[in-house]
Amino acid sequence: MELKDLIGQTSEWLKATGPDSDIVISSRIRLARNIGGLKFVDWANNKVRQEIAKKAKEAILSSNYMKNSIYVEMDKINPIDRQFLIERHLISRDHAVDTESKTVFIGDREIISIMVNEEDHLRLQVIQPGFVLDDAWSIMESLEKDLEKRLGFAFSDEWGYLTACPTNTGTGLRASVMMHLPAIVFTRQIDNLTDAVSKLGLTVRGFFGEGTQAIGNFYQISNQVTLGHTEIEIIDNLKRVIIQVVSQERGSREFLKAKKKKIVEDKISRAYSTLGGAHIITSKETLELLSLVRLGIDLKLIKNIDTHKLNELLIFTQPAHLQKLEAKALSPSDRDIKRAELINKKLGIKG
Amino acid sequence: MELKDLIGQTSEWLKATGPDSDIVISSRIRLARNIGGLKFVDWANNKVRQEIAKKAKEAILSSNYMKNSIYVEMDKINPIDRQFLIERHLISRDHAVDTESKTVFIGDREIISIMVNEEDHLRLQVIQPGFVLDDAWSIMESLEKDLEKRLGFAFSDEWGYLTACPTNTGTGLRASVMMHLPAIVFTRQIDNLTDAVSKLGLTVRGFFGEGTQAIGNFYQISNQVTLGHTEIEIIDNLKRVIIQVVSQERGSREFLKAKKKKIVEDKISRAYSTLGGAHIITSKETLELLSLVRLGIDLKLIKNIDTHKLNELLIFTQPAHLQKLEAKALSPSDRDIKRAELINKKLGIKG
Repeated sequence: MELKDLIGQTSEWLKATGPDSDIVISSRIRLARNIGGLKFVDWANNKVRQEIAKKAKEAILSSNYMKNSIYVEMDKINPIDRQFLIERHLISRDHAVDTESKTVFIGDREIISIMVNEEDHLRLQVIQPGFVLDDAWSIMESLEKDLEKRLGFAFSDEWGYLTACPTNTGTGLRASVMMHLPAIVFTRQIDNLTDAVSKLGLTVRGFFGEGTQAIGNFYQISNQVTLGHTEIEIIDNLKRVIIQVVSQERGSREFLKAKKKKIVEDKISRAYSTLGGAHIITSKETLELLSLVRLGIDLKLIKNIDTHKLNELLIFTQPAHLQKLEAKALSPSDRDIKRAELINKKLGIKG
Repeated sequence: MELKDLIGQTSEWLKATGPDSDIVISSRIRLARNIGGLKFVDWANNKVRQEIAKKAKEAILSSNYMKNSIYVEMDKINPIDRQFLIERHLISRDHAVDTESKTVFIGDREIISIMVNEEDHLRLQVIQPGFVLDDAWSIMESLEKDLEKRLGFAFSDEWGYLTACPTNTGTGLRASVMMHLPAIVFTRQIDNLTDAVSKLGLTVRGFFGEGTQAIGNFYQISNQVTLGHTEIEIIDNLKRVIIQVVSQERGSREFLKAKKKKIVEDKISRAYSTLGGAHIITSKETLELLSLVRLGIDLKLIKNIDTHKLNELLIFTQPAHLQKLEAKALSPSDRDIKRAELINKKLGIKG
């Protein structure tokens, strides 16, 4: 498989399987690792960075977990492909700029991806659909052990795994879940929730991770602290909070169904109709309307589309995906037209 | 026919027939008349007002034009029926308050209506679909002559017909057309247009006449001056202006089709879809969206509904019409729900 084949498949994490997938879209584990004896990326010259890339490539491609992975050199692909990888949550925004020596490895069904020469030598990611942090951690643990054997990661008995930025030192672990919280937003509890979550040492972000605003009621919740706790403690702490958030969202949905049925039906039905009727639509409005349709599916008000198909639309309506589907560069206003066409087609409704 | 039967028919003026009916919904002629030798309504005591009502009734019901007309005593009907008559443009808002001695006569197909004891003893109205001021005037002239014979209207050689308010003295004539001007509004020419029209001695009002705001791009344009010109001069002056406004609207629609096609298609299609998808909708939003759908019909973008049916919806979605259709009083929020149901049904689309 090659990079160009990805547009023909749906990332595993969008498949709406796994526990609580009506509320938890995906679970993600990320580890930051650096190869012992080599300078951190920001301190390394280009020669060292190329050495890092070379060692990483040998180790990763010989690992059982990544044997048939797609290997991409970031400076050899065009800006649309870089943006495409960001939209698929396979690389960070930072990994798409100053691309020299930067590479990425994408495993089977996009469950595993590994960035090389991002902020750290290696950024390992496991992402899966539903509320499955333990499963994701279990895959990550095996992957990391396997690479550790081959690369020897920088580790201090006092600090744990060493990382370029002290906020990652210790475990190098970030565990996160992407949640869809329309009922909590609708009932105006979201600000209280994000405040409370922050006080528990967690961070709330938007659909595209660090530095992005919440949009379409999608929230990514992750641990802040990486030092002073074991990986299991960090994950368990996150899990405890997510269980509560899931329960709060579920309760709020019940409340809406019982007490605000007509208003919610109106909003959802209008969103669905507007998606069907639009001839021009921005990606922001798309996410907002798809969020309402997603809630409509969960509340069994909308039946002719399933959550998997809807999740897919969240990503395939993004700018680079649209351009890959059309196999050419499109201006923002042309994208708004093509996006509307794609949605009309996928929802099977014509305005 | 009785008042209660009107809900089962569409007023003639909504039928979208007649010249330029894509832009001119209806043409209306109104005459103010007072019976000679009796005090103006505001100066008359109740006894005199009842005498006016009695004389008017005898004259009107014996006129060939109004033989089978519906006769309504305003103080004998309930507030929903009063509002219903306002929505159908058969009486003024003023005629629905302080209803003692006030009556109204409604002729065949609602083309003619006559209010008694409004501001003047008689207010005669002829309203027809399309740009047909001459036809309406011709009907009005015959009607007025017929009633003049029976009632003898107050007339001064110096001032012409005498009326309670000096702004109506002379001819007592108000000629008006209801226009749909979405393209002039969309291309931001409407303020200039209303300024220019005012300078020509005309007045621009909203969908429900005096004191109402323009909504849904519907504008009623009428003469201001009634004195010092013949009826024909007043009507011809209005006609000349309306011909220009029609031409400007038509040109603006061509411009939109040529230069803003996609944006206009998007707006129209969204409006249509939203009307189909809404479960709750106010009458203001309804008028705004129906206006866009009406433009869509005119531009041949929407084909499964005609202008007649659409005009009908403009009126049947109004509060009193909804309550008459449901045969019971409804709270505003219940109306918003019933309105959405009616629209879904009439447009034949289900969200």
